[in-house]
Order: sequence, then C-alpha cells, then structure tokens
Amino acid sequence: MSAADEPLLALRTRLAELAALEEAMGILGWDQEVCMPPGAAESRGRQVAAIAVLHHGRLCDPALGDLLARAAERVEGLDSIEAANVREARRERERALRVPAELVDRWSRATVAAHGIWVDARARSDFAAFAPILGELVGLAKARARAIDPERAPYEVLLGDFEPGLAAADLDALFDPLERFLVPFLGAIRGRPAPPRPAALDVPVAASEQQAICRELMTVLGFDWARGRLDVGVHPMTGGAGPCDVRVTNRYRDDDLLAALFGAIHETGHALYEQGRDPAWADQPVSKARSMGWHESQSLLWENQVGRSPEFWGFLLPWLGERLPHLRGLEVDAVCGAIARVDPENPIRVEADEATYPLHVILRYRLERALFAGELAVADLPAAWDEGMRRSLGVTPASDREGVLQDVHWSGGAFGYFPSYTVGAALAAQIYATAKAAVPAIPAALGAGECGPLRAWLTAAVHRQGSRLESRALCLQATGGPLTAGPLCEHLRRRIGGVYGLSDREFGG
Amino acid sequence: MSAADEPLLALRTRLAELAALEEAMGILGWDQEVCMPPGAAESRGRQVAAIAVLHHGRLCDPALGDLLARAAERVEGLDSIEAANVREARRERERALRVPAELVDRWSRATVAAHGIWVDARARSDFAAFAPILGELVGLAKARARAIDPERAPYEVLLGDFEPGLAAADLDALFDPLERFLVPFLGAIRGRPAPPRPAALDVPVAASEQQAICRELMTVLGFDWARGRLDVGVHPMTGGAGPCDVRVTNRYRDDDLLAALFGAIHETGHALYEQGRDPAWADQPVSKARSMGWHESQSLLWENQVGRSPEFWGFLLPWLGERLPHLRGLEVDAVCGAIARVDPENPIRVEADEATYPLHVILRYRLERALFAGELAVADLPAAWDEGMRRSLGVTPASDREGVLQDVHWSGGAFGYFPSYTVGAALAAQIYATAKAAVPAIPAALGAGECGPLRAWLTAAVHRQGSRLESRALCLQATGGPLTAGPLCEHLRRRIGGVYGLSDREFGG
Repeated sequence: MSAADEPLLALRTRLAELAALEEAMGILGWDQEVCMPPGAAESRGRQVAAIAVLHHGRLCDPALGDLLARAAERVEGLDSIEAANVREARRERERALRVPAELVDRWSRATVAAHGIWVDARARSDFAAFAPILGELVGLAKARARAIDPERAPYEVLLGDFEPGLAAADLDALFDPLERFLVPFLGAIRGRPAPPRPAALDVPVAASEQQAICRELMTVLGFDWARGRLDVGVHPMTGGAGPCDVRVTNRYRDDDLLAALFGAIHETGHALYEQGRDPAWADQPVSKARSMGWHESQSLLWENQVGRSPEFWGFLLPWLGERLPHLRGLEVDAVCGAIARVDPENPIRVEADEATYPLHVILRYRLERALFAGELAVADLPAAWDEGMRRSLGVTPASDREGVLQDVHWSGGAFGYFPSYTVGAALAAQIYATAKAAVPAIPAALGAGECGPLRAWLTAAVHRQGSRLESRALCLQATGGPLTAGPLCEHLRRRIGGVYGLSDREFGG
Repeated sequence: MSAADEPLLALRTRLAELAALEEAMGILGWDQEVCMPPGAAESRGRQVAAIAVLHHGRLCDPALGDLLARAAERVEGLDSIEAANVREARRERERALRVPAELVDRWSRATVAAHGIWVDARARSDFAAFAPILGELVGLAKARARAIDPERAPYEVLLGDFEPGLAAADLDALFDPLERFLVPFLGAIRGRPAPPRPAALDVPVAASEQQAICRELMTVLGFDWARGRLDVGVHPMTGGAGPCDVRVTNRYRDDDLLAALFGAIHETGHALYEQGRDPAWADQPVSKARSMGWHESQSLLWENQVGRSPEFWGFLLPWLGERLPHLRGLEVDAVCGAIARVDPENPIRVEADEATYPLHVILRYRLERALFAGELAVADLPAAWDEGMRRSLGVTPASDREGVLQDVHWSGGAFGYFPSYTVGAALAAQIYATAKAAVPAIPAALGAGECGPLRAWLTAAVHRQGSRLESRALCLQATGGPLTAGPLCEHLRRRIGGVYGLSDREFGG
C-alpha cells in the first residue's frame, strides 16, 4: 500500500463504521416488527434514536469531510468503483450536512405527530383534520430541499431521497406515454368480461403450510438461507443488515394462498438484490442498491414478469400440486387468466393490479409536483385527487378515506416516494426483456423451475453493480437504452390484453 | 426545576443514551443466539464493535466527566437514589477511563485468539497448547487491574468486574465455612445409596410440548409477557434490552423434561429481577442489578430454593400431571428425592448438583487468587487443579479436558467471575430464609401455585433496589445480616441430608 492510498483506506474504515451502524438499526427495525414484545416500544425508540444520533454525528464529522475531500482528489477523473464510492459517500454526507439540526428536529417531531393525526383523520375520513399538519410537513420538506440545494426546484431535490440521478423530466418521459397507453387500454378492458377464477385457488390452506411452501419456493428462486431468514410479519417486507443478513417477512391468510406466494416472490426479488451486492464492497456505499425504484424493479421482475407468467406457472402449478392436492388438474392458462384480472373500479393503490397501479402512482406524482410548485393548495387536494381518479381510472372514491387519505406516505413526510413504484415496474419490464434477449434459454429454464440463469444475469447486470453507476447510466448499461414506458406497455398489452381478448390491432403490438 | 438541577438532568440524559446503546447491543446479542443466519457472524461482529466503540467514546467523553463532577458536588453527603446513580456512573466511567486504549485493544485481540485456542486445546485435552495464551491473558488482566487501581491487589480489582463492593475477604468468609461444611457432608453422603429416580421422569416429551409447558410455568412464576419473550437457544440464557424487553432462551431435549423445567425456572428468576427494576430509573445505572452474584441469587432462589422444594412440587406435580398424564400418580417425595440427588464423582462444574457446585467454584477461586498473587504459575495449573479436586471432591479428572480445560471463562479473560455463582447460591438461601420469616404464608402460597407473595417481597427487597446500595449494605438491608454460609449450609443439610437420611446430629441443625 502506498502512502497515497492511506486516505482511501481510512475512508473505507469510516464508511464501514457507518454501514455497521445502519445494519444494527436494520436488525432493531426487523426485531421491532417480528420479535419485540409490545411493552418495549418506547425503549426501542430510544435505542434506535441513540444510534441514529451517533450515526448522524459520525456522518457529519469534519474528519470524514477531510477524508472525503482528500479521497476525491485521489480519484478525480477515474472511472473506478473507488471513485463511485467516494461520490456516493459525498452525496449522502452533503444531504445530511446541509440540513440544519433545528430543521431535522422539527421534521422528526412533525412526522411523529402527523402519523397519529393521519391515523385518526383517515379513520374518520376527515381531511380537514389532517390538512394543517400536512401543510406544515410540505413547508418543512420545502425548507429541507432548499437547504440541500437552493438552485433546484424543491420537488426535484426531494426525488433525490428515493431516485438519486433521476429528475422529474425522466419521470414525465416515463409516465406520460404510460398514461396515454393505459387509460384507453383500461377503457377497452372495462367493457369485457373478467377472466374466471378457478374455485380451487380459494380453498383454504393453513398458514403454517403456506409458510412452508413459501420457504421452499424461496429456495427455488435462489434465496441463500445462510445469509437470511423468513418470518411472519404484519406486512411482507425485506430488511435486515446488509447482504449477509437479509430478513424477509410475509403474512398468511388461510383463504389467500396466492397473496402469500406473490408476497414471497416479491420479497425474494428484493432479497436477491441485497444478497447479490458486491461482497468486496459490502460495507461501502457503492454496493448499496441504486435506488428505491431499482430495488422495486427486482421485486416486481420476480413477482410480475416471472411470477405471473405462463412459463413460470408451467413449473409452479404442478410443483404446488405436489404439495396441495386440491390444485391438481388446474390449467396453467386458467390460473394465469385469473391472476391477470384487472379491476379499474378499485380506488385503493395497495390493492391495485399491475395495469391500474401506475395510474395511482402518476396521480400522486402530479399532485406532489403541483403542491411543491405552489400550484395546488393543501386544502384543494381532495378535489384534485377525486378529479384525477375520475380522469385516469374513471372512478370517484366514496370518501377521502378511500381517496386522498389512503396512503401513509405523506404523513411520514415521504414526498417523492410514490414514483419509485412505477419506475420499478417499468425497469422490471425493460430488464426482463433485455435478459430474455440476452439469454434466450431463460423462459424455458423458468418453466423447469430453474431460476439460476435469470438470477445470474440479474446479479451481474444489477445486483453487483450496486451504486457504481448513476441511475441513467446503469439503465443504459443494463438494458441498452434509457428508461422508457415501452416494455411495460408491451408487457401489459400481451399479458393482460391477451387474457381479455384485445386484439393487437387495437393496442398496437 | 431549579438551575441547580440542570447538571443532574443533563447527566441523566447522557446516561440514558449509554443505556440505550447497551440495550441495542443486548438485542443484537440475543439475535445472534436466536435468529441470526450463520453467514452473518462476521458482519454482526462489526455491528456490535461499532456500537461498543461509540459507547466507550461517550462514556469516556470529558463532557460526561464534567457533568459527573458537578453532579457529585450537588449530591455530596446525600443518601439519595440520585447520589447512588452518580456513584454508579462514576465507578463505571472510571473503570473504562483508566484502561489505556492500547491495552483494551490488546485485550480484545488476545481474548478472540484465546477462545479458538482453548476450543482446540480442550478438544485435544492439551493444556500446554493453551498455557501461553492463558499466561498472556493473566498478564494483560494484571495490567488492566493495575491501571484501574494500582493500590489494590490485582485480583481484588478484577472481582470488581462482577462483584463490586465485595472483597476477597468477603469471599473467604463465605467460602471457608462452606467448604468446612461441604467436604465432610459429601463424605457422609458418598457412603449412602442415592435416592431412586422414578422412571416416569425420563419418559420422552416432545420439545414443542416442553416449550409450551415452560411458557405456562413462566406465567405462573410471574413473567410479564408484555415485556419479554421465550425462545429456543443453544443455552438457557436471559438477555435483551432492559426491564421492558427481557429475552429468555431455553433448550429442550426430548428425554430431559426436568432440565427444561429447571432451565425455565432459573432464567425466570433472572428475568423477574430485570422486569422488577425501578421503572422511574430504568434507563439509569442505579436501576441495574447489583452484581452478577445478586443476579444469580434470584435465578438460584427460584430454581433451587423454590423450584426443587417439596412445597412447590406440591403444586407443580399435579399441575404437570394435568398436561402430561404419564406423571400422574408420582409422589412429591419421590420426585424431590430424585432431584436432590448428589454426585460427588462428577468432575464437571456445569453438570454439578447443588451441594458439589460450591466446591467447584471454591477451587477455581483459590487457583485464580494464587495465579494473580504470583503464587502459582500457569504451567502448574493442571496439577494444582487435580490436587484441589482430590482434596475437596475426592475425584481426579480423567484428563485436562475434564479438569482445568473444562470452562470457557478463562479463555474469555473472565478472571474473578466464578465466585459469583456461589455468592448467588448463598444469597439465595439467605434471602429465601428471610422472605419466609417475613411472610410466613409464602411456602403455602407456593404450594398453591401462587408466586405473587414471594415475588412481591423479592421485588421490594432486591429488584427495585437495583444498585442503590453497595453490595454489603444491600445484603444487610434485605436479609438483616452480612453474607454468610449458614443459610446455604442449613438448606443443603435439610434438603439433601434429609433425602440421604443423615441425622441432624451428624451435621448439626
């Protein structure tokens, strides 16, 4: 090691310490959902806060700033993973450093208060009760965005919390054509009979048996049990502590086997991303997932592109039949039809199907942009929400509870989060199409229950890449082009249009 | 609040932060035993080390020193819980502060290395392979002790890690009479037939059923499930994160129901101590258990004084019979005889019974004292060990593996730890005798499965007291006298002498 490498090595040690603290918080968070006795909630809050404060202090420590500056000089102009690591660490530090402590403090108080107010307001479908604190949160988020980067529009800055490297223009370029495809597509579907759902799919299966099946299925998908585990949780979720300790939760309702299966497949997609991170850089920022949207691309690729495909059900249905005799005799096409069913009447995002989900997201994105651009007042949100729902999905929520109050995100101050869901869905379609073009044997392998070829391709193209490249560059490298609506539209047209008997002519192939 | 209270409040905030970090490490430690996938061992080490380093930094922070000094002035001469809190915090800080970082570093490296060397050496029964690193650890422990307090003998200082406030003279005053009683007592037992063990006690019970029974039994004992949980672990253990989150583990072998029951009762004793800490001071040093020995007093009180007593089995045996029909028809006396069986031939401490256990401890205590006084060389340990075993228990270990290499403690550098086991056993007897004298209804209540009266007494006399008093003063307050061998000898004479048919004349009542 030359003396010149010293700042880089010292930097890695510092950044590994930050990662270790984040991982510890990851375990405490998982434990809170899965293990913690109810009486420990308050003390757990103090434990996490104590670590978070120390983490913030270490991140903002001027000594780290010096190391980063010296390291940046060393790697300047280099296209190396070392240089990317420095870039990612600087970005994180700058975002933390620029927000004054007083604002951080007001922010945490406001979000804690807002959550309780939102829970009550939603229960009573009373938007007016939520509006003042929401207004306060929007104001604080604007102040935070200005502190981070006074040169850019606040909403652009906030998007960087979830999709660093993407701008509102990227989202418009994705969302506008997607909406132009989806609105008439759903209009055409609305007139057609829904595919029937075979009754066998709703035969109750004991939760313990569902969990055992999900465990086996995760093994088929390639989950590494030496570096992770599966537990029962309130929500399906993937958390834990870095690539060596990936904690998946899933939930089970006796009468909803499919929900458990898709939950397990979705979370395994997240888990494989984490387990596939570059082991040589596992404790460094550069190995982290590129963004929320990229993470969601992996879960949705496995859940929707693979997990709902006829090719995979060619394997899955007989495999399930070996474990659940009541599923024997079902036809793959019948199952795939049932799980491709679309319900444009549903006003609730979390219950939405593959085709309507993006419209829920696009509505929220537009409302957020308008709010932060000062073009929409908080008081006018409910009317704007309902109007947007009518225009895109053709439904009017029965109440604010089923409308503007339905999501937890805004009460937590997570403005700019929603777009990642649809960025993920679009990336999933684009990546899967690329993978199949690169390795044509993938669909047949999936049909034989062999997930290795797809997984290996994803690991090389996405998981190992971590945050080495910026989002746009990673998309270009992984898929050969920029993020675009085309592959997702094409996927929905084939998958769902096919089930509903829409001709290619109507929705151009 | 007056301005004069400010340093005290600021101090409490600082100390609460330290407690929160310790609690977080408690959860990470529990998770490592119970949940963590095997591939996460290395990253978990880094997580705990990162928090430990920050904890050490905060503990040694000069600003905390200033606050403690100002607080100490404010509480000087007061006999208040506030004053005790300052005393305990200062003691902990001084012990941390006085050990140079370089020594801390050498210490952790040496203990990490020593563990692996000990595992190998024990497997091969090769003391010579362990001797060099053990010598190094003894040297480092001496250096650490001198750094903490150069005025006192190193071993006295090391005892303070486990039994602050007790000196070797206190241990001698306990151990010498205990040994004088036990050696002839066991000699007399050795000639007599062991009580028979009813075959029903060894009928296999499925591990899952054992765990369910242990859970119910813990409820009977008063474990608060809102503030704790029970899981399967490699060893029975109590850990977690303070009084609101007490994590018990237990282990189950199909053919050893009794081991599981006593494991659960023992750990519940520890757990009740934690759950019984003063809620108003739960995040402060003063609420912590007084010492290792005091902690063990609570587990051994429930396990041995209560859990093996005929009065408690008057409740437990029919209660078990309701759950396990094969136990119906057993006599309480037969069971209590079987579980009071003594085996002086057994050379292994962790398998020892109530009567021989103290002799294992006394041997180790004497060897440790001699080592640290320079009166015994590491190389001479095996011979000294075997000679001690011959003198006290009349057995010679078949090999060093069953002798000087059997315990993990020295490889971890835990010199001065062993005495706490027997301090706990003696305190347990002394406290239980006091409780029964104070509340004569306790035995009858236990016989009816009502543990509330005993638990309430223990909570008031011990659990809530935390570290408010020094060890000797707490013993005086809780039991009316100093720590002494009498109650434990009396307990063993009655319990075990009775089973073996020894007359009171032989072992004076």
